[in-house]
Amino acid sequence: MRSEHAARSAIQHELGELFGARTNVAQTYGENFVRLWALASERILGGKLVRPLLLVATYEALRQAQSIALRPFEGASNPREDGCDQATVIRIASAIEVLHYSFLLHDDVIDGDLTRRGRLNLIGALLDEAGSTRNTAYRGPFGDDDSTRANLHWARTGGILMGDLLLSSAHQTFARVCLPTATRIQLLDVLDHTVTESVAGEQLDVGLSGGMIAPDLETVLTMSTYKTATYTFELPLRAAAILAGADALLESALAAAGRHLGLAFQLQDDLLSTFGDPRQHGKDSFSDLREGKQTALIAYARKTDHWIDIEPIFGRRNLSLADGARLRELLVACGAEQFVRLLIDEQLSSFFQILDADPTQIPNHVRCVLVDLASQLEGRAS
Amino acid sequence: MRSEHAARSAIQHELGELFGARTNVAQTYGENFVRLWALASERILGGKLVRPLLLVATYEALRQAQSIALRPFEGASNPREDGCDQATVIRIASAIEVLHYSFLLHDDVIDGDLTRRGRLNLIGALLDEAGSTRNTAYRGPFGDDDSTRANLHWARTGGILMGDLLLSSAHQTFARVCLPTATRIQLLDVLDHTVTESVAGEQLDVGLSGGMIAPDLETVLTMSTYKTATYTFELPLRAAAILAGADALLESALAAAGRHLGLAFQLQDDLLSTFGDPRQHGKDSFSDLREGKQTALIAYARKTDHWIDIEPIFGRRNLSLADGARLRELLVACGAEQFVRLLIDEQLSSFFQILDADPTQIPNHVRCVLVDLASQLEGRAS
Repeated sequence: MRSEHAARSAIQHELGELFGARTNVAQTYGENFVRLWALASERILGGKLVRPLLLVATYEALRQAQSIALRPFEGASNPREDGCDQATVIRIASAIEVLHYSFLLHDDVIDGDLTRRGRLNLIGALLDEAGSTRNTAYRGPFGDDDSTRANLHWARTGGILMGDLLLSSAHQTFARVCLPTATRIQLLDVLDHTVTESVAGEQLDVGLSGGMIAPDLETVLTMSTYKTATYTFELPLRAAAILAGADALLESALAAAGRHLGLAFQLQDDLLSTFGDPRQHGKDSFSDLREGKQTALIAYARKTDHWIDIEPIFGRRNLSLADGARLRELLVACGAEQFVRLLIDEQLSSFFQILDADPTQIPNHVRCVLVDLASQLEGRAS
Repeated sequence: MRSEHAARSAIQHELGELFGARTNVAQTYGENFVRLWALASERILGGKLVRPLLLVATYEALRQAQSIALRPFEGASNPREDGCDQATVIRIASAIEVLHYSFLLHDDVIDGDLTRRGRLNLIGALLDEAGSTRNTAYRGPFGDDDSTRANLHWARTGGILMGDLLLSSAHQTFARVCLPTATRIQLLDVLDHTVTESVAGEQLDVGLSGGMIAPDLETVLTMSTYKTATYTFELPLRAAAILAGADALLESALAAAGRHLGLAFQLQDDLLSTFGDPRQHGKDSFSDLREGKQTALIAYARKTDHWIDIEPIFGRRNLSLADGARLRELLVACGAEQFVRLLIDEQLSSFFQILDADPTQIPNHVRCVLVDLASQLEGRAS
């Protein structure tokens, strides 16, 4: 797809410009602040850009459906001719990637994670560097143990602060968008809804894992929708609809379709984390099981006779490979794996129902983008 | 001051409306999310409103100086007559209070603090409630020790997440401001500058305390300016200038004056924390000394012969009252206390120089607001 390639380049260019400008400003504030931006840049610029690409593809499809000829994204060779639109779409798409990375950072701080997809995350990288570059001219009021503690504190603080900077940056982009006031307010509304819902989802997740909130299936599914589906699928689809000037009915149909698809992806993530090949999905083997993560698998298993065997192993911090393998077997035997596969099918079925419903009139071009996305669920390994 | 009273009411009303609306939306997301908003509301609505009141007073003074008759803030009995201006000023002023609270929250998470000004902060309140309301129907995979750990994790997560929500909310208010595009962009620029600088200041603070950054006097003073003076004084003054349509020269004179005054206040805070009466300033006695906080006092003391006696006690986590009293004596004896008093005088002198410089033409009405503010430094105990 020539167009996807061009969109990817344009988004990467936009993110490069943004981080370049931010890193320049950071010079004023000293080497540690510059380093924080540099480490964050490296990570965000290597992302898969799932969300911004979905926005651009959906926007293009909507515009094609509106029979408005749009030149493909080939870098703004003549920005005046392309007008505000193309640059704005890329800018909002990139801001959604920035928002995504901000959420990931605070999620990593909250979960205490130092890696993501098999490499050091920002916090891990800051920790790594703090160990070797600690100021040696000044011996602080800390012994060796305290140094380790101080380094971890420094690294986590970096994660919180960069999350704040990127959350602010995403809002700044939406706030400055070069569009009529009503459209800008619509975009800001969707951003606001997304932040609220994602934060509510994160709170539910931590409450479920910590035992503050009863982990029934409905709550677990709600948490997954709020925490992941909203900002990964609903936000890009709605933003595309707003940017393309689609009507409210179409926007809300896309939002609903996105939520179902997003939940399907999250449920498949849960399956992959437990049953998939860690070399492919990049997480530690059994990390969900070791951390006692409340997934749909576990919510189902809890209601079965097998729970008596699962409970004593689930959430063990020193979970062995053998324990993990045993849990896998039990989660298959009790029917949880099969149940979650059925849940995925259910979500996909609701998704297709929305796509095919007449009153929403999702144009065929857009339908193709979404069906293409849904087809990635098949045979997905990471 | 009748006008300050009216401004305070208007700001409190605006904050009440904002938190009311947010709490209503939170209903959709369950009781824990509502509770998070309720606990945050209680705390922010009890604030002293220093920053928003400074904005409103400066704005009014600028408008008076411009000889534009402005009705005092008496609540919008007839909002149409008052136009967009008055409501907008109150809205931006309130957003600055929201930003302030967002910074405090992440600061408390980073410092591990559970109290502020002698009462439980949001994190402390969440921890307190988690202990008593933990879901008892479901016994999670946690023993008693793990429960305490999980409760603290829950509480700190709440602090991070509410900080994110309020940081977003402050941006949303700026982004939606009902003003010409150029003015909105100016306000967004100041907000962006403020967030960047405050975050850089927080990173410096943690790096200084943790021994990653050498604690020389210049760095400590820079940190205090970035972390506190920028958002407490520069931001409200510049926002007032922009809202009143003041020119760039006046805006930057106010910004510079605000930075000097802000640093003077922060230096006095450092003195109060070490030498003041904890019943009045609301902090733990000697908490700065116990935490090894790198203040100007300590940066000065480090260069004196008394450091050999100070160093072994400074930063002791189990600092006794006698240790604290001894440190106080040493910080006086080595000249650090006197030195910081001189630094405050220096900052005030720079502040007055800006106020009196001809080319900036700070109007007399505005000068009165600032001199009044500076006079609060005298005899300040909290």
